[in-house]
Amino acid sequence: MTRELIEQIIGMMEKVRSKKPLIHHITNYVTVNDCANIVLAIGASPIMADDIDEVETITSISSALVINIGTLSRRTIESMIAAGKKANELGIPVVLDPVGAGASSLRNQTTERILSEVKVTVLRGNMSEIRFTAGLKADTKGVEVSEADQRIGAGEGSKVAQDVARRLGCVVAITGPTDIITDGDRTIYIENGTRHMSNVTGTGCMCSSLVGSFCGAMDDTSGGPLIAAASGVLVMGLSGELAYEASKHLGYGSFRTTIIDAVSKLDGETLAAKARIYEAGFGIS
Amino acid sequence: MTRELIEQIIGMMEKVRSKKPLIHHITNYVTVNDCANIVLAIGASPIMADDIDEVETITSISSALVINIGTLSRRTIESMIAAGKKANELGIPVVLDPVGAGASSLRNQTTERILSEVKVTVLRGNMSEIRFTAGLKADTKGVEVSEADQRIGAGEGSKVAQDVARRLGCVVAITGPTDIITDGDRTIYIENGTRHMSNVTGTGCMCSSLVGSFCGAMDDTSGGPLIAAASGVLVMGLSGELAYEASKHLGYGSFRTTIIDAVSKLDGETLAAKARIYEAGFGIS
Amino acid sequence: MTRELIEQIIGMMEKVRSKKPLIHHITNYVTVNDCANIVLAIGASPIMADDIDEVETITSISSALVINIGTLSRRTIESMIAAGKKANELGIPVVLDPVGAGASSLRNQTTERILSEVKVTVLRGNMSEIRFTAGLKADTKGVEVSEADQRIGAGEGSKVAQDVARRLGCVVAITGPTDIITDGDRTIYIENGTRHMSNVTGTGCMCSSLVGSFCGAMDDTSGGPLIAAASGVLVMGLSGELAYEASKHLGYGSFRTTIIDAVSKLDGETLAAKARIYEAGFGIS
Repeated sequence: MTRELIEQIIGMMEKVRSKKPLIHHITNYVTVNDCANIVLAIGASPIMADDIDEVETITSISSALVINIGTLSRRTIESMIAAGKKANELGIPVVLDPVGAGASSLRNQTTERILSEVKVTVLRGNMSEIRFTAGLKADTKGVEVSEADQRIGAGEGSKVAQDVARRLGCVVAITGPTDIITDGDRTIYIENGTRHMSNVTGTGCMCSSLVGSFCGAMDDTSGGPLIAAASGVLVMGLSGELAYEASKHLGYGSFRTTIIDAVSKLDGETLAAKARIYEAGFGIS
Repeated sequence: MTRELIEQIIGMMEKVRSKKPLIHHITNYVTVNDCANIVLAIGASPIMADDIDEVETITSISSALVINIGTLSRRTIESMIAAGKKANELGIPVVLDPVGAGASSLRNQTTERILSEVKVTVLRGNMSEIRFTAGLKADTKGVEVSEADQRIGAGEGSKVAQDVARRLGCVVAITGPTDIITDGDRTIYIENGTRHMSNVTGTGCMCSSLVGSFCGAMDDTSGGPLIAAASGVLVMGLSGELAYEASKHLGYGSFRTTIIDAVSKLDGETLAAKARIYEAGFGIS
Repeated sequence: MTRELIEQIIGMMEKVRSKKPLIHHITNYVTVNDCANIVLAIGASPIMADDIDEVETITSISSALVINIGTLSRRTIESMIAAGKKANELGIPVVLDPVGAGASSLRNQTTERILSEVKVTVLRGNMSEIRFTAGLKADTKGVEVSEADQRIGAGEGSKVAQDVARRLGCVVAITGPTDIITDGDRTIYIENGTRHMSNVTGTGCMCSSLVGSFCGAMDDTSGGPLIAAASGVLVMGLSGELAYEASKHLGYGSFRTTIIDAVSKLDGETLAAKARIYEAGFGIS
């Protein structure tokens, strides 16, 4: 099963590189450059546009839409909704990254509003953010996962993810020590990555942008959003792991640089050799 | 002729480094940090300011204005117009980068509005963007040049550039496999650079910022905006080429870093040795 | 005395790393990514949020607030004031970086308004910016210190800083060839850093973010905002110095990266060995 997953993911990487899908982002200004560069590094093409006067047009020429609420404002919230609705109308996949959900009413209400007005294809966040969208009391510490939520194991975490996925009818990806990706039915676990990734800003955002890139390359043979989401999460974790090994003697500035390096150099052989991915009900790889 | 061009460009580099001109940017939030750093790397000084309540003042203390519509919004469009008019009033050169022209009505209308209300000194874009401003049917793929437009040769491309330059009375710089810089009369071609530059976000924006830096250092002996634009385009292409050689074994994260490195280390000797620049009607260097 | 200062600063570094304080930033979009990454590198946690609908909430869950007017706008000015007032109400320290004060009426008026409506804990800027807030005629060249102001020595500079500190009842930190940090009574000088730091955008902003990180870790045993400010300024200068040594053969792109590297790797032993810090009235270290 793991072997089949890995082959599907390698196939998705090839699709991204050959199709070069355009990925519309309405995202935050903190990590936007890294998001653009990681989208280019995996082989897709980013476009960032947030004005209400053009977001529908830009979404309509794109292959996927990534909505990231990291530095949301009254102005851009309306753009997120308009773009999301246009994407739904045209059957374009939507990735939502509810950055900091739980940290303020504005983030909470915006997350709820997007989820009620827009049909989201993949919801990606940390345990605190996804627990919040599940209506559970989530601790939060700004935009980072809380320590309590960080300690939630894969078992309890997967129940949270599955509940949200079933309720919203979407794929949910919780990234953390063990990443959990589920459509409410099938659940995939990934154990790549390193805890040091939380010491570089934007590794969560970049993961969502990779998920968007893979969603933009989906076709009839690609296994749907579950596999697209797992592809993004695996590429991010594995690249982070390789990048940390390459830069740990240097420091976190170099780590940031080598993450993009690793994504741009990642090949199927390395991915197959180093992926730690398994599906619930099947043995670990 | 090539030798004279190269000497003029080396002279421009010295002028930038000795004058350290202040370059006002109203630009996008995706690549703004790279634009600021490349302006510093060539020896000029960047200031980013986009609020309508200060853009005229900031332009008036600057030596050049760079308008980049990469993440335009209703708010900043008015600032671009106001700053552009102030620059015209004071005789300060204006560089326009019509990022994504052709991709949405908002970008199209904004480009047309700026070009009709502001006298632009240098218009720099890719073939799709400049073809759009020429009123030609341009393919577009978001903010990247379309594949069809990418295949347009230097001959046809230079006609497009010359037509736009004559109509607008400005210098037009189209960057691509062969860069074309023209004032409608003289046309300069540059063949430095590498296709890999399109795999790092902002190489177009950075090129426009370099053009702005050179425009800000113009004086009576510097050959005017044609030479300033050629200087920016040549420094960008050559630095990209050197940077790619230095980083290709590492990946695109390192490539981004080494582009700024290369600009900061570029000297006249290297430029003279590696520039592939020629003027229409003269032999290639 | 120097030894005691260094021990206090090393103690502050340990407090930041153990408490991991959340640092709310309302800052500019040019250097925001570097600010987030340097906050992570020193061991604190950044959150960037600027919408009026959430800034008070975000401040209230944070341990310090950093206000940076680098790309101020009508919209964010109101957010700065609201967040600052909330911080005052809750006893949360506020760091103000008046980027480009002196360059436009908007920056001047905003700086004055913040200083009159918000009780600032630490005011950090270059000599031109602080001279402006002192009501002195300051030269300015955009967001950089003017050449005339750069030549002002530590003696005259410390009088300016002390006057402002006494008038505003806050700590003032002027960074330059010799950094001056004063609460109007005690004055600390730091001679680390390199002039090359002005060739990378955001070294001033990053310094303010470090000061904010140390302010967020203050407690009864930490020596108050004077020591917190000195800690941020020393860590920035020393890291810049180490980073320049590590990258000078490469260029300014690598310099930017190695600044974050150096902060993330800085330990007490290196700090004690290389700090050039002394207090007025005591011998130099």
